[in-house]
Amino acid sequence: MGRIVYLNGEWLPETEAKVSIFDRGYVFADAIYEVTCVLDGKLLDYPGHAARLKRSTDAIGIKLPVDDDGLLALHREIAERNDMREGLIYLQVSRGNPGDRDFMFEKDMEPTFSMFTQKKNVIESASARKGITVVTLEDLRWGRCDIKTVQLLYPSLAKMEAHDKGADDAWLVKDGFVTEQTSATAYIVTADDVIVTRPLSREVLPGITRASALEIAARNGFKVEERPFSVDEVKAAKEAFYTSASNFVTPVVAIDGEKIGDGKPGELSLKLRELYIEDRRANAI
Amino acid sequence: MGRIVYLNGEWLPETEAKVSIFDRGYVFADAIYEVTCVLDGKLLDYPGHAARLKRSTDAIGIKLPVDDDGLLALHREIAERNDMREGLIYLQVSRGNPGDRDFMFEKDMEPTFSMFTQKKNVIESASARKGITVVTLEDLRWGRCDIKTVQLLYPSLAKMEAHDKGADDAWLVKDGFVTEQTSATAYIVTADDVIVTRPLSREVLPGITRASALEIAARNGFKVEERPFSVDEVKAAKEAFYTSASNFVTPVVAIDGEKIGDGKPGELSLKLRELYIEDRRANAI
Repeated sequence: MGRIVYLNGEWLPETEAKVSIFDRGYVFADAIYEVTCVLDGKLLDYPGHAARLKRSTDAIGIKLPVDDDGLLALHREIAERNDMREGLIYLQVSRGNPGDRDFMFEKDMEPTFSMFTQKKNVIESASARKGITVVTLEDLRWGRCDIKTVQLLYPSLAKMEAHDKGADDAWLVKDGFVTEQTSATAYIVTADDVIVTRPLSREVLPGITRASALEIAARNGFKVEERPFSVDEVKAAKEAFYTSASNFVTPVVAIDGEKIGDGKPGELSLKLRELYIEDRRANAI
Repeated sequence: MGRIVYLNGEWLPETEAKVSIFDRGYVFADAIYEVTCVLDGKLLDYPGHAARLKRSTDAIGIKLPVDDDGLLALHREIAERNDMREGLIYLQVSRGNPGDRDFMFEKDMEPTFSMFTQKKNVIESASARKGITVVTLEDLRWGRCDIKTVQLLYPSLAKMEAHDKGADDAWLVKDGFVTEQTSATAYIVTADDVIVTRPLSREVLPGITRASALEIAARNGFKVEERPFSVDEVKAAKEAFYTSASNFVTPVVAIDGEKIGDGKPGELSLKLRELYIEDRRANAI
């Protein structure tokens, strides 16, 4: 049985949800997306994701076709219709279909709004158990990575290149400093147990899991520093990890073929994962 | 009566051509496009556009679902079905629909191939007669602008910003030097009648009209120099113009509110437009 997905007010079998070839999401990548994790049938860190969706759509002037209550209700309904206990909910809002292709657009267009679910074991994760390996690649993304647009071709190609090189993913590098993992936030843990991650700017996504993880880390007595870090620092680090909505805190054990620390998931990383899951699970709605 | 468009082997009324919400063109901007001008019912500079399409799809590993003859036949058929004497033909090829969303993809996917026509007066152009005005904006596009992907959100937003500022379009600037117009190649003509445009690199699209215009300029005794030029040089230039598939050579008469030359379409620019149209029209197929 296939999924039931949502498209512009309709619930449809997943194979029947279609958008026009003139939709601006298709011809101009003029669309925003969000991904929220579902655990025990509840939404994790939902207020953060809803707020970031609003921030992204405001940044490029797309009108959200639902209010706060409506958005939450849609998340609950799609989870229920698809019997989702664990996994993620993806939503995308494009500027809509103007009926023809034009770089210029009307400012009050009716957007195209779609949602679907993906079942996934987020707690029992092989990546978390074993850690992942990464390679470094030049960060060639556009200059507003703080807006969560669907311009994801480069992250996608970078992940493919990482796999071709025998790694699980890529850490993107600009001027010698790590910006992000292809679709996640990157961290190191220094020799003196300081968690380091790049400060927010136009070059990185303001990760919802990032915000929660840093807050939980600080609350539990971990030292946190927000500053750029170099690839050499990663190689000299005690541990490394990444965060994302459906991977929580996941260890990174090698970069460009070199072990990070002892090449095994770090103690602090795993502890933070445990704390993150415990805290967010208790606060899921 | 609406247009007849092409989608994956079918000819459809324009309102019925749709792609899945899981299509990688929609969720990852994983798609390439091309635009070819039609004049007198014939294709302008077609071999260049066909070659660049191949170059772009090869660059990101999308398989073209038609061979050279098939591609040309589709261009001819869509022009005929839509009674297209003058305007443009747009084609887009996305990596296809894997049925679910995943940054990773299979390397042999069946692409999604769509085409549509847009009627447009390309010869009788108000822009060419009056020239256009531009503002400068920071170039925030990704690092591979030489590949013609649909990641066009920034060019679209930049055009909107230019209009909001009372101009017709924007020239994008990186490190003080002009890269391109939002969706066209930028040129100045210096005090000593040298046509200057930025050399090809990952930062600019290898314009088909650019290549033809430079070749025709050189053949007709104009001096051409390929080097980066600054915004100050634009302000001090004798003339400025841009080239694109459906605008040929079009004068630019002001930048950031300052007149370029005497603020009227330049003599050399208009001459080159005339030569371009004459030459390409005679060679249309």
